[in-house]
Amino acid sequence: MARQQRAMRTREALIGAVAEIVAQEGLAATSLTGISKRAGVSNGALHFHFVSKGALVEALEAAALARLRAVLEAPADARSRLQHLVDVTHALTRELTTDVVLRAGFVLCADVAWEPGADLRVHLRRWVEDLVREAGAAAELRPGAEPEGIVTAVVGAIAGFEVLGARDAVWLAPRTVARFWELLLPALAAPALLGTLDPAGTRGRP
Amino acid sequence: MARQQRAMRTREALIGAVAEIVAQEGLAATSLTGISKRAGVSNGALHFHFVSKGALVEALEAAALARLRAVLEAPADARSRLQHLVDVTHALTRELTTDVVLRAGFVLCADVAWEPGADLRVHLRRWVEDLVREAGAAAELRPGAEPEGIVTAVVGAIAGFEVLGARDAVWLAPRTVARFWELLLPALAAPALLGTLDPAGTRGRP
Repeated sequence: MARQQRAMRTREALIGAVAEIVAQEGLAATSLTGISKRAGVSNGALHFHFVSKGALVEALEAAALARLRAVLEAPADARSRLQHLVDVTHALTRELTTDVVLRAGFVLCADVAWEPGADLRVHLRRWVEDLVREAGAAAELRPGAEPEGIVTAVVGAIAGFEVLGARDAVWLAPRTVARFWELLLPALAAPALLGTLDPAGTRGRP
Repeated sequence: MARQQRAMRTREALIGAVAEIVAQEGLAATSLTGISKRAGVSNGALHFHFVSKGALVEALEAAALARLRAVLEAPADARSRLQHLVDVTHALTRELTTDVVLRAGFVLCADVAWEPGADLRVHLRRWVEDLVREAGAAAELRPGAEPEGIVTAVVGAIAGFEVLGARDAVWLAPRTVARFWELLLPALAAPALLGTLDPAGTRGRP
């Protein structure tokens, strides 16, 4: 049991190390020696867990997808689907500033040299599509607002905030996300719902 | 004169070759040998023009910035600043699908391993800021629409379309950009102006 826990911890340390290098310097700068050094793990232990750099990066990708799913699938405590959408975009940009595994997963997506197995952006787009469809079925959308347009604007902007945020953290600040929703919500929310929506997000508040 | 023209052509071929490799495979995959081979230029000729890979990538960056400026600073034939903004976003996404130098310039911006000299996205943000400020001064904005929110949504979405478009060209399609504006224009344009605006762009039309 102790040995299994140790093995698990080593594996997590290796994924954390590759995440830090990918997020800071990109995939190409990532070497097995650099990873084992940063994780404080011997080359032998690294090879026990991962046969190659590719296998380690795939494990990083899977870990990043799990983090993304945890953000997207957290229980909805909002009063409407649109408020839930707002709350989740706030949660996602906040996680991107603090969670290096999640950030590295998005850096991989943006790297033209990497062929993603699990494309985080595609996963995010499908999640937004589903939620917007549900919001439409629940009469939460403004009459005339096209679901495809809403998905385009929201997924496009989140992808943009993420990639711009890698160079300038202000793009991931709560104020930036709130400004985006202040502008967008009147265009997409049913008038009766609009007054109940908080562009700054409601998660974690009473 | 003939020699100068030849030298200019060689330089352009080298920049085109490095742009193709950066756009398709990323900066790390770019080697001087690969570049000279793709450009059909000897290693000696390459070194005559550029002392290092870094110098060549800087030349690519400068060329990409010049292409971006040509798109942003083309004469405005639209009837309003907001229509000009719509038209330029259409022109930019169209150029991104056809101009490999421009596309490679944005790939460089997204590469965490590259320290940009001329950040195309920062240039784009400043241009949008200026235009939105002018639109506000000309009473083209909807009362209550925050200029910062407009800049955030537009720059964020363009950055998103560009990075998503590198994997899936539909993000750079005219229909995608038009959908974005169909949703956004009612939220940001003065009501009297709204009816005159075409989300699909007016450039090149009578």
